[in-house]
Amino acid sequence: MYKNILLKLQYDGSEFHGWQKQKKLRTVQGTLEEVLSRICGESIQISGTSRTDAGVHALGQCCTFKSNLKIPIERFASVVNKSLAQEYSVYREVGGKGLNSHSDVSDIKVMEASVCDMNFHARFDCKGKTYMYKMSTANPNVFERNYRYFLPSARGINLDIEAMNEAATYLVGTQDFACFQAAGGTPRETTVRTIFDADIVGDRENIEFIVTGGGFLYNMVRIMAGTLIEVGLNKKKPADIKSIIESRDRRLAGHTAPACGLYLKQIFFNDIPLR
Amino acid sequence: MYKNILLKLQYDGSEFHGWQKQKKLRTVQGTLEEVLSRICGESIQISGTSRTDAGVHALGQCCTFKSNLKIPIERFASVVNKSLAQEYSVYREVGGKGLNSHSDVSDIKVMEASVCDMNFHARFDCKGKTYMYKMSTANPNVFERNYRYFLPSARGINLDIEAMNEAATYLVGTQDFACFQAAGGTPRETTVRTIFDADIVGDRENIEFIVTGGGFLYNMVRIMAGTLIEVGLNKKKPADIKSIIESRDRRLAGHTAPACGLYLKQIFFNDIPLR
Repeated sequence: MYKNILLKLQYDGSEFHGWQKQKKLRTVQGTLEEVLSRICGESIQISGTSRTDAGVHALGQCCTFKSNLKIPIERFASVVNKSLAQEYSVYREVGGKGLNSHSDVSDIKVMEASVCDMNFHARFDCKGKTYMYKMSTANPNVFERNYRYFLPSARGINLDIEAMNEAATYLVGTQDFACFQAAGGTPRETTVRTIFDADIVGDRENIEFIVTGGGFLYNMVRIMAGTLIEVGLNKKKPADIKSIIESRDRRLAGHTAPACGLYLKQIFFNDIPLR
Repeated sequence: MYKNILLKLQYDGSEFHGWQKQKKLRTVQGTLEEVLSRICGESIQISGTSRTDAGVHALGQCCTFKSNLKIPIERFASVVNKSLAQEYSVYREVGGKGLNSHSDVSDIKVMEASVCDMNFHARFDCKGKTYMYKMSTANPNVFERNYRYFLPSARGINLDIEAMNEAATYLVGTQDFACFQAAGGTPRETTVRTIFDADIVGDRENIEFIVTGGGFLYNMVRIMAGTLIEVGLNKKKPADIKSIIESRDRRLAGHTAPACGLYLKQIFFNDIPLR
């Protein structure tokens, strides 16, 4: 019997050319579809909630696909993870000319697999997402080079976290966020989005920007992060965020912070109350 | 005037085929020599204290080289790090077909550069080294897949840390460690080595084995780690370590734990007192 399967995923974006399938490039969608098709014995097409860019990580991405699955759903995640580990070993062996890899851990991991209603769709039924952006004013660390944005112009400086948190409050609400939209994304009907929550947490050196919204424009979180950094450096005032949003002018916002600091943290399929 | 330069290095071994230069493969020595030769305007040969294997990381590797250096030594680390970041970007661009990278952080970092006595040599003047081996019984995490050994047979199990620490005490001293030597390394005159200190630290799930010795045999720390894991799983008793060492029989020791968990932590150029 045909089933609709929901997977919750974690992945390290460093060795992927983003989520979306591309010819001859290793992508999360492409890798997963290949592995799932082999396991299910049929051609599998998955729909992800978010098409994360190259270098962007996920702690809680979701995707759905339909399959005549014969493996019990309780065992499915472990079967897929084993197959993903094999794929990763081969990728490191061929692409990396024999680079070492942990024999049984891949850079994608299925956290949960469940059977859901046939009409449920990971993208269309999404009510909101939480993103996290990790930044640091510490000296760069080789081990975190792909996992955190080490601000090149602010090493050793303490960011003004209170000012950044005040600035973040101006992001909350249903507003026209055209100022935080990069060129090059899929054209959208409207640039109005709802942000439910926006916070800055962490100590003086290592800071996380955590934002929950109903939907996001192209590069929106990375541009928001770049703008909040300017507030943290006292180059902009917290209240400037309000006028930047009102201007709808991309040039007034900050730079687009790099992909490596961005994590898709959580997907919501139920309504989220406004803060 | 010719100078003898000492560099203290940090590197992430995941994208390297080990320390030692190899044709057509990216190695730490090869990458550093290329970058240093370009900066110094002459062909540079470096001597590293330890020839770490593929996948092994370093927090405090050292190397020396001679050069007619014209850049002030205080500025040298930062100049080399800039050049290393460029090399890393190109490597990701070409080898990874355009994978993202942080524009100014590489997977090798010069922590310190200093001018030393002309006779000083990073390998021959080394009096000892500290290695750290990171392991975990937690469920594997995609972000740590290359940085910690996730014990495949012990997920969710708590290792017996007290027993492991007791076992570690048997490693200390000047002993014949033939049982912890893998085949395939450079032949050595003797398998007698001095271990100054050996400890297990950490919580129940994430554990570090930290060992300081005057010198180590091929794969010695990784085999010690594999043996201590068996003690942690109660497959061996702490006192078994004593008889394993006395046996000089590699087959009685545990498995070779994978490279990804191993870190060269510190190099000592002064005498180390025995614990």
